[in-house]
Amino acid sequence: MTYLLLTGGRVVNSTGSTNADVLVHAGRIEAIGNLTDLPIVDVERVDCTGRLLLPGGVDVHTHLDSPMMGTTTSDDFASGTRAAACGGTTTLVDFAMQGAGQTLLQSLETHRQKAKGKAVIDYSFHMCVTDLYEGATDEFPEIVSSGVTSFKVFMAYRGTLMLHDGALFDVLRTSSAAGGQVCVHAENGDVIDRLAADLVAAGRTGPGSHEISRPPSTEVEAVRRAIQIARMADSPLYFVHLSTEGAVEAVAEARANDWAIAGETCTHYLTLDRSLYDAPGFDAAKVVLTPPLRTEEHRDALWRGLRAGTLGVVSSDHCPFCLEEKRRLGEHDFRAIPNGGPGVEHRFIVMYAEGVRKGRISLEKFVDLTATAPARQFGLSPAKGAIVQGADADIVVLDPEGSTTISAETQNQRMDYTPYEGWKLPGLIENVYARGELVSESGKYVGAEGRGRFLERSAL
Amino acid sequence: MTYLLLTGGRVVNSTGSTNADVLVHAGRIEAIGNLTDLPIVDVERVDCTGRLLLPGGVDVHTHLDSPMMGTTTSDDFASGTRAAACGGTTTLVDFAMQGAGQTLLQSLETHRQKAKGKAVIDYSFHMCVTDLYEGATDEFPEIVSSGVTSFKVFMAYRGTLMLHDGALFDVLRTSSAAGGQVCVHAENGDVIDRLAADLVAAGRTGPGSHEISRPPSTEVEAVRRAIQIARMADSPLYFVHLSTEGAVEAVAEARANDWAIAGETCTHYLTLDRSLYDAPGFDAAKVVLTPPLRTEEHRDALWRGLRAGTLGVVSSDHCPFCLEEKRRLGEHDFRAIPNGGPGVEHRFIVMYAEGVRKGRISLEKFVDLTATAPARQFGLSPAKGAIVQGADADIVVLDPEGSTTISAETQNQRMDYTPYEGWKLPGLIENVYARGELVSESGKYVGAEGRGRFLERSAL
Amino acid sequence: MTYLLLTGGRVVNSTGSTNADVLVHAGRIEAIGNLTDLPIVDVERVDCTGRLLLPGGVDVHTHLDSPMMGTTTSDDFASGTRAAACGGTTTLVDFAMQGAGQTLLQSLETHRQKAKGKAVIDYSFHMCVTDLYEGATDEFPEIVSSGVTSFKVFMAYRGTLMLHDGALFDVLRTSSAAGGQVCVHAENGDVIDRLAADLVAAGRTGPGSHEISRPPSTEVEAVRRAIQIARMADSPLYFVHLSTEGAVEAVAEARANDWAIAGETCTHYLTLDRSLYDAPGFDAAKVVLTPPLRTEEHRDALWRGLRAGTLGVVSSDHCPFCLEEKRRLGEHDFRAIPNGGPGVEHRFIVMYAEGVRKGRISLEKFVDLTATAPARQFGLSPAKGAIVQGADADIVVLDPEGSTTISAETQNQRMDYTPYEGWKLPGLIENVYARGELVSESGKYVGAEGRGRFLERSAL
Amino acid sequence: MTYLLLTGGRVVNSTGSTNADVLVHAGRIEAIGNLTDLPIVDVERVDCTGRLLLPGGVDVHTHLDSPMMGTTTSDDFASGTRAAACGGTTTLVDFAMQGAGQTLLQSLETHRQKAKGKAVIDYSFHMCVTDLYEGATDEFPEIVSSGVTSFKVFMAYRGTLMLHDGALFDVLRTSSAAGGQVCVHAENGDVIDRLAADLVAAGRTGPGSHEISRPPSTEVEAVRRAIQIARMADSPLYFVHLSTEGAVEAVAEARANDWAIAGETCTHYLTLDRSLYDAPGFDAAKVVLTPPLRTEEHRDALWRGLRAGTLGVVSSDHCPFCLEEKRRLGEHDFRAIPNGGPGVEHRFIVMYAEGVRKGRISLEKFVDLTATAPARQFGLSPAKGAIVQGADADIVVLDPEGSTTISAETQNQRMDYTPYEGWKLPGLIENVYARGELVSESGKYVGAEGRGRFLERSAL
Repeated sequence: MTYLLLTGGRVVNSTGSTNADVLVHAGRIEAIGNLTDLPIVDVERVDCTGRLLLPGGVDVHTHLDSPMMGTTTSDDFASGTRAAACGGTTTLVDFAMQGAGQTLLQSLETHRQKAKGKAVIDYSFHMCVTDLYEGATDEFPEIVSSGVTSFKVFMAYRGTLMLHDGALFDVLRTSSAAGGQVCVHAENGDVIDRLAADLVAAGRTGPGSHEISRPPSTEVEAVRRAIQIARMADSPLYFVHLSTEGAVEAVAEARANDWAIAGETCTHYLTLDRSLYDAPGFDAAKVVLTPPLRTEEHRDALWRGLRAGTLGVVSSDHCPFCLEEKRRLGEHDFRAIPNGGPGVEHRFIVMYAEGVRKGRISLEKFVDLTATAPARQFGLSPAKGAIVQGADADIVVLDPEGSTTISAETQNQRMDYTPYEGWKLPGLIENVYARGELVSESGKYVGAEGRGRFLERSAL
Repeated sequence: MTYLLLTGGRVVNSTGSTNADVLVHAGRIEAIGNLTDLPIVDVERVDCTGRLLLPGGVDVHTHLDSPMMGTTTSDDFASGTRAAACGGTTTLVDFAMQGAGQTLLQSLETHRQKAKGKAVIDYSFHMCVTDLYEGATDEFPEIVSSGVTSFKVFMAYRGTLMLHDGALFDVLRTSSAAGGQVCVHAENGDVIDRLAADLVAAGRTGPGSHEISRPPSTEVEAVRRAIQIARMADSPLYFVHLSTEGAVEAVAEARANDWAIAGETCTHYLTLDRSLYDAPGFDAAKVVLTPPLRTEEHRDALWRGLRAGTLGVVSSDHCPFCLEEKRRLGEHDFRAIPNGGPGVEHRFIVMYAEGVRKGRISLEKFVDLTATAPARQFGLSPAKGAIVQGADADIVVLDPEGSTTISAETQNQRMDYTPYEGWKLPGLIENVYARGELVSESGKYVGAEGRGRFLERSAL
Repeated sequence: MTYLLLTGGRVVNSTGSTNADVLVHAGRIEAIGNLTDLPIVDVERVDCTGRLLLPGGVDVHTHLDSPMMGTTTSDDFASGTRAAACGGTTTLVDFAMQGAGQTLLQSLETHRQKAKGKAVIDYSFHMCVTDLYEGATDEFPEIVSSGVTSFKVFMAYRGTLMLHDGALFDVLRTSSAAGGQVCVHAENGDVIDRLAADLVAAGRTGPGSHEISRPPSTEVEAVRRAIQIARMADSPLYFVHLSTEGAVEAVAEARANDWAIAGETCTHYLTLDRSLYDAPGFDAAKVVLTPPLRTEEHRDALWRGLRAGTLGVVSSDHCPFCLEEKRRLGEHDFRAIPNGGPGVEHRFIVMYAEGVRKGRISLEKFVDLTATAPARQFGLSPAKGAIVQGADADIVVLDPEGSTTISAETQNQRMDYTPYEGWKLPGLIENVYARGELVSESGKYVGAEGRGRFLERSAL
Repeated sequence: MTYLLLTGGRVVNSTGSTNADVLVHAGRIEAIGNLTDLPIVDVERVDCTGRLLLPGGVDVHTHLDSPMMGTTTSDDFASGTRAAACGGTTTLVDFAMQGAGQTLLQSLETHRQKAKGKAVIDYSFHMCVTDLYEGATDEFPEIVSSGVTSFKVFMAYRGTLMLHDGALFDVLRTSSAAGGQVCVHAENGDVIDRLAADLVAAGRTGPGSHEISRPPSTEVEAVRRAIQIARMADSPLYFVHLSTEGAVEAVAEARANDWAIAGETCTHYLTLDRSLYDAPGFDAAKVVLTPPLRTEEHRDALWRGLRAGTLGVVSSDHCPFCLEEKRRLGEHDFRAIPNGGPGVEHRFIVMYAEGVRKGRISLEKFVDLTATAPARQFGLSPAKGAIVQGADADIVVLDPEGSTTISAETQNQRMDYTPYEGWKLPGLIENVYARGELVSESGKYVGAEGRGRFLERSAL
């Protein structure tokens, strides 16, 4: 068929909702309105009565096929993007890690090859900078002009990933001059290393110590510092995975001054409690994420931050390591447990259920946080993030009357656990369209293999 | 014709812009998309190539046919709404002032009668509460359920308009319980009265003293106080006509906490400088507005506040008094000069020119500030404020290549001056559609008389 | 004897402590040092080995023989000052309330007559301004030049004591111009009146409702407002009886800007918990004080505020009403219970025990808060507040090894209760010297009657 | 003579002033009071009528005989302490720099030997930690117990002096556990290095570039970071040489929370303007100090900070390098100019003249800032910093009617310039007593050689 017409649904965008039909043609949205009576020919009509039509999710923080802490994340671009699609996410921005002995451009090419022909949804990369070798910044303009318009740096993990303040400053201003922006992992790694060493010295080597070694203040200090350095460099800054009340306050102050500071949090910081670190045995390793889960006080602040617009994006920080792999590497020293967990598949439905259905955010805000805002933040709009004429027809058909049960057994992520095990949530993601193609039906992937495309993103 | 099809224009909404056709039917927007090839019959096609299609302006702060300071504003609902329509504004929310010896409900009815059959665009009212007589709050539920879902109070003008903090508290919590919100004029009137009396005692009776008697701190104090009182009353609050950096800071702090505090500023605070008070003779009376115009430092803070989202709405505070009337009443004592000036006609084009064309805000932000946000803030969406399927077809066709010159001689406002006299601005408002009807062409009203409707607004 | 020599004690001043002898002559301190070997003749030597020699307490907030809320405080200047002296306080600043139909000067004279010949320690007054009649401010210069260099105003109690913001502004700037300062009772009385009326309407008429009607925010708002108004008036301000964390924060911010803002708290806010309002029957009336007692969180903030220097003075707010009198007036409506409680007798020892002995403040800080700082704040130094050469010989000899038990039965205050009933505290006030005369021995008054003098205080 | 009696002067302490005689015996203050009539035998009486008797200055920030930036400071302990004494300063705390290949304890001993037999006034050291070698922190307890109870670290000068955040954290908590405190040089050196490299790359190699490479934000960021790290380490912190408004604000916030954060500024930041960097030729090198001089806005904030108590100490940061030496090393690259200038001789009189005589601070505050507070901050009281019984008789006799003219030609500092050249100031330092010995008369050293003693300072 030439045309696809989704009829009778409720179209939800970040700014409002309306009952309307959506006409799709050649992978894009052709029109929105009362279209059922129009004499369109060669059209497949899909009745969406009672359904929400939502922009396909945009997840700007995933780590697929990624070398990290002595191992590699368990999902590659095939399995990871399938999980994403089944979970209502139709666009990813992953990280191109810097390879040992590789230039940035070589590292980027390496990651592009990893995704090519494997990804089933559209994707892009942030360019990670973990070793600012002589000449590294000279490559920034070429990277940006290739459509990779954001960089990522770490303020923690001295010796492997961390850049010192001077290198951060260099990355910020060079990136900014090239039209890019910088994503920052903000934790004071040096203090954390000492707190962690103390714990190990005291024999507290189990996974629960991970949390204790990274108290909220280690995040807050780094956030405030990075804001100041961004100001000195006159550059925009995007904080990944914020987890604390103090960080929200710092970002709010900066934004109130109209500084170009943005902040993201992740599904798990909004929904999971630190008490998971008290689990017996090695189970706490499931939530050895960085930064760690926090108390309710912080979660409340994060939700407030989302509502107030201080935090604009919710990502998954999908960084999956099987529990067995975590055990193998870090059973005797929590510092060696690979940091991360799964999330790309369930971000969308968990945010819908815990956010919208629990009354914490409106449906429109949900759309903004999971699709519209991340697309705009990272130069993916107008193609991605909204159901508007001209955009890619990435559409999630959600049945608010249905329900979803999360389980490791049935998930598409290549993981042996999920922190949401057994959660039964209101809402069912039925059809997922990616560029007008039906790719998923009720959690099963039905699309073609390797259909995803690399997205060249806009510069600032 | 049954259908109107605006073709080839660039549709601008607060969240993005797209080249699309807009199909209008029965006063509403029927569809948006690539519609030119569809075989629609009985359609009038209007070529909008090269034009911006913008949501009709929503001005939530006007005073038409309004008794104030011993006189009445110079525009009634006929002249004022014509001026609005010619200036691209298709919805007003005016103020129903409390009449002497009248109940609130009676006062509201009085104002509804003033507008009925005269207004040419759709309108609503805020219910002013200037005398909280015994039983006044009992009328709030009926007022709200009649579609007047906002109240207005003054923290200045002791003896005429001002409510003391206890009455403010009462209005806040009663309004909130009824589903309404409260608009506050925030100035510490008691301190101002003393500063003004000092000036008069010192022989400084001219219009320039108006500014000196109302320093920025008199606004900032009242804003901070009102925020605290709103918190005690657990009620939402909307600040009208904020003019100072300190007020922006106070509102930003409150919003960062996710408190239901909103703020508006006005065209003139964004574009006119306090040096106008230094004008010779009685000319400074033209800008005897309350609060007064401020310095560049404050204007910069207001623009920052708009960009940062601290301030969400730009209104005109159209409160017109001819200069001759100002002179008649206040030539010998600036305190008797009626406070206010014109603005409803030029808000839209001045904001477009000074905001968008000078690079201070994006086109989308402009739409948000002048239409989308005020409509949403005051319960007028989804009918008003956006070009989306299902909304009223209130559309401004603006030619960015055209230009506009402002002059008292040619304006539609019933006024003998405009503070923007002689300003030549980029951009020309060509056609203005209100509920699908063409009401204005290049600054001339071409619509029917008295076609405006009273809008019942949503409660919170 | 011509000379008195206190030997072997440890002299404590706000800036340091030293083992030294103190030579007293003609009511004043003649010398401090190693004086035992000097051949002084006609000297009475008092061995103070093992004792602390502390500056006599200065309590700048008492209400003796004071008309209030339909009754009169239970202590007059005879009984109240005896209690003070026995408790280690040798100087009071009381309040001259404005009498009905009296000018300020007349009211001041009335209060001076109440004290004359009755007070046994030196005293002064703050001039209360509760009705700013026409011409009232004209009397300020004469009041200040008579040595009454501070005024007191209320932001609560509409209809009896409260001044509105404009009158507050007038008092501030007139006082400041005359060289005086203004003490402010900062609570938003208008909001409180409404909360209280609600409670009564809901049948919650018991004394415990007092606390609920005066939540922390009613203090914080008023404190912030008063600071702003003082800034507009360019005048110094002193907050009496601060009780909340928010107030401490507000004052800290102001002081960090070097604004002339000072703050006091009282013994009971530092030591008593709000749970006393949960007492059965009418017992909660004992702590119907204004503002009310708060939670531990606020107490911690007050102690922090003292240590940080944000709050500089601890007073008693001695405003005694017998429980029977409270019952008589307010048994059926908590709003009619006279607000206040006893404290002048126990401020010194409670602060020593709860502050110094519990490690919250140093001995030097204790001296500062109870004597040095209040004396300096209110123009009583160098005569009062420190053990330095030339100062009045107001000296408390405290045995740190002794102990004190507080009881209504044994107290000197003319009261039928004390909120510290049964408290056994470390430290015993042995001898108290006032201008070199021994006036109290271990809690018994041994001095002459009516020996106190009116103190003319310095202007700013 | 066994006794010295200074008669008729005005004794000034930080808490008040009084006309009194001061009796000195065996190097200490024996008594203060009206002592002229007492029959003391074997006494030398010195008439101090009309003079101020001030506590001898305590300067806690000097660099004598100190290796730095490839050279050594121009004053050794003989010349430097003579200059101090002549300028009214009777106690120094210098820095024991860490020597190449030396342990901390060895470095400390090296510096003690430098001072021994040369210093003419009493002195102590801060232990600098610039290389936190394995085991360094193990020496802290011994260092502290030897009376060196403060450490110094740098957040700037990567490669030579700078410690990274983790090392700072280690120093803080180890020092704190041992009863010591940490002095921090707070500048973001990494950002500064980049800004400086840019300037050099742009050919801007002259001394004026020094200022540009160290903008205020580089200090403010480091101050805020250090406060946070001190909180994580639960340790006290003392900021040396603060120069900016933002730093004052950060310290004020911390202190308002009762955190153990203290701040010092220096004479030159209070009195010299950044315009000195615009001097022609190489003259700007005279004020190549770190941090650099700032604008009036910052100076005003520093004075406010002193008055408000945010900053408690004024030191000289005496770090003298002759202009010729500066030229030799840094003529072609401002980065090589040794950072520092003279000051120990003129701190006292400049602060008296610019502070007290210009009405910015009271005489008592002057005493506090230059003597009492630094002595207390660094464990030197009660022996040093106040004229009280039992203290060392370190007394400055100042004639307020006299005057002082500063000139390189006449100064005692071993320097070829002074930034205060030609300043004529009110006030003349006549006699200076150090432990009861007359060491200086009107700017000429008259005491014995090498009479200074090493002071063992108290732990916290």
